[in-house]
Amino acid sequence: MRLALDAMGGDHAPAATVEGALSFARAHAEHQVILVGDERRLRPSLPAGKPLPPNVALRHASEVVAMDEHASQAIRQKPDSSMRVCFELCRVGTADAIVSAGNSGAVMAGALLVLGRLPGVERPAFGALLPTLKGEGHCLLIDAGANVEVRASQLAQFAVMGDAYVRCVLGVAAPRVGVLSNGEEEAKGTELTREALALLKASPLGIVGYVEGKDIFSGEVDLVATDGFTGNIVLKTSEGTAMAVAGLIRSAIDKSGLSEKLGALLMKPTFAGLKKVVDYAEYGGAPLLGVDGTVVVAHGRSNAKAIHNALKVAAQQARSPMLAELKAAMARAQTWLPAKRSKARKGP
Amino acid sequence: MRLALDAMGGDHAPAATVEGALSFARAHAEHQVILVGDERRLRPSLPAGKPLPPNVALRHASEVVAMDEHASQAIRQKPDSSMRVCFELCRVGTADAIVSAGNSGAVMAGALLVLGRLPGVERPAFGALLPTLKGEGHCLLIDAGANVEVRASQLAQFAVMGDAYVRCVLGVAAPRVGVLSNGEEEAKGTELTREALALLKASPLGIVGYVEGKDIFSGEVDLVATDGFTGNIVLKTSEGTAMAVAGLIRSAIDKSGLSEKLGALLMKPTFAGLKKVVDYAEYGGAPLLGVDGTVVVAHGRSNAKAIHNALKVAAQQARSPMLAELKAAMARAQTWLPAKRSKARKGP
Repeated sequence: MRLALDAMGGDHAPAATVEGALSFARAHAEHQVILVGDERRLRPSLPAGKPLPPNVALRHASEVVAMDEHASQAIRQKPDSSMRVCFELCRVGTADAIVSAGNSGAVMAGALLVLGRLPGVERPAFGALLPTLKGEGHCLLIDAGANVEVRASQLAQFAVMGDAYVRCVLGVAAPRVGVLSNGEEEAKGTELTREALALLKASPLGIVGYVEGKDIFSGEVDLVATDGFTGNIVLKTSEGTAMAVAGLIRSAIDKSGLSEKLGALLMKPTFAGLKKVVDYAEYGGAPLLGVDGTVVVAHGRSNAKAIHNALKVAAQQARSPMLAELKAAMARAQTWLPAKRSKARKGP
Repeated sequence: MRLALDAMGGDHAPAATVEGALSFARAHAEHQVILVGDERRLRPSLPAGKPLPPNVALRHASEVVAMDEHASQAIRQKPDSSMRVCFELCRVGTADAIVSAGNSGAVMAGALLVLGRLPGVERPAFGALLPTLKGEGHCLLIDAGANVEVRASQLAQFAVMGDAYVRCVLGVAAPRVGVLSNGEEEAKGTELTREALALLKASPLGIVGYVEGKDIFSGEVDLVATDGFTGNIVLKTSEGTAMAVAGLIRSAIDKSGLSEKLGALLMKPTFAGLKKVVDYAEYGGAPLLGVDGTVVVAHGRSNAKAIHNALKVAAQQARSPMLAELKAAMARAQTWLPAKRSKARKGP
């Protein structure tokens, strides 16, 4: 796969993006990375005097979309920004996928402007892979933050898109799909969740019904659908809790006696494995689903390892039949989804 | 303080409630516990042939509100239920506070029916104390699940009530108050959060602005206000994450070599301390704020230790000037809160 990397995106760019790209390219000779960014600013991070690995290319882009810039304005007014160029490379077929740790609002705006939505998709959404307790499993949370206020039909579409992702990329034959709510009984939830659940129950998806916050991690569902406001809060709460638990272990060890300190030393490999899971928010790459291309958003704080992993996720996704399957799934969903509201119709 | 305990409430009642009450009463001679429930069903859990501790009384109540019963119907149709009797004891002044691990919807219904709302309070709300990383601190999350759909003025009231609790019960002189959102910038959030934040910014509370899910645990705010749908999901997500992390540590230890197993053994005291924090959801007691009395809801899965702790929380709260201060705070808030909608007005 040919992966366009927004080398200027993220808090630690371009040092972290270049290092992550080189490490990925060395480990995966079968893939190519196109480093997109300001050549003069990328150079200092590249290996001095040595040629680039054969599967890494440099593509100059003179502008940068800043992390705090107005998303859609930036993407429109900076046609030669590293992010926008990534999207263009994908649109013309030079790249198979895009990875960016930059302004996620701008990624969404760029994807909509340059790649466009897939037919039938009202709102593209971010997916986030959360670790589950059972084995090496994952649960896809969608929407993880793109759409703050949504309609029931849009929430149902998130489930359709997530279902295609889980089948094609995670290889789950028959995903179990839940709608996030404040209790399992059907009387729970908001008007939005109740309406979305009713729609989904009439769909061919493997709907298990409402699930609660704790079920995301239990491994009993493969996919949890929610609005982007709640999804963002789930993601950040989970990140905060994991950090708090890790911090509490650390401070307990600091305060503990000699034998416990020795114990902690002996357990170092265990904690290293744990850290990897705790850090999922930084090490995963969130797919943007519903646009006509493979787009993966890495955490803004991404280090080289996180970029490496996001490239891996993007390659896996681009190689899978996900995009075609998502299109087919959206076409099939038109039989049970309510007709899209006409644009002429005034608000609710 | 005289504490009425709903001895029939909770998954492990009455064994766990009786055991928790006895353990609390023995440790706190200065307080009294009134065990309310079906005497014949309580007897087998009481110490055989021995008199009750002098600060424990038994109050027979012939009926029980089941965990899955319709909340307000149950509380109305079972006047001699252990839960309803607890509220009556409080109303007539025989008890200073109520603790129940029973149906939380019925606790809310009973509190509204028997004790009533405090003047100016539109919707009473559950508070939940979450552990923070800094020292032994806590952050109060309100509403933790009582009101699924709320208006901005109600969300602002949650902050007023939580602020009084944090000042009077946790002893924080000037609480820092945040509104939960999907980002810190003021443009983020929903119509509800933006409107609530605008109201609160004009209040005398120590508003820091929007906070994210991770900030609940960082110790930078003392209080986070949100609607009950989001609050419930935060609570359950945090519980699920903590359980997942604990489970991952356990399975990593199981798979590890001898030296790591030894390490884990040496670290046992550390993990025990950690478990205490991880289990906060089960060991705390959530105050119901906004009703005319001290009401503490324990987790449905409460064991004896959880009941013991909930009684402790209730005693602490009842002894504090919280209720009077909450009334005063609500009276002061009328100057900046929008006028309550007339009941005659039709919904939005």
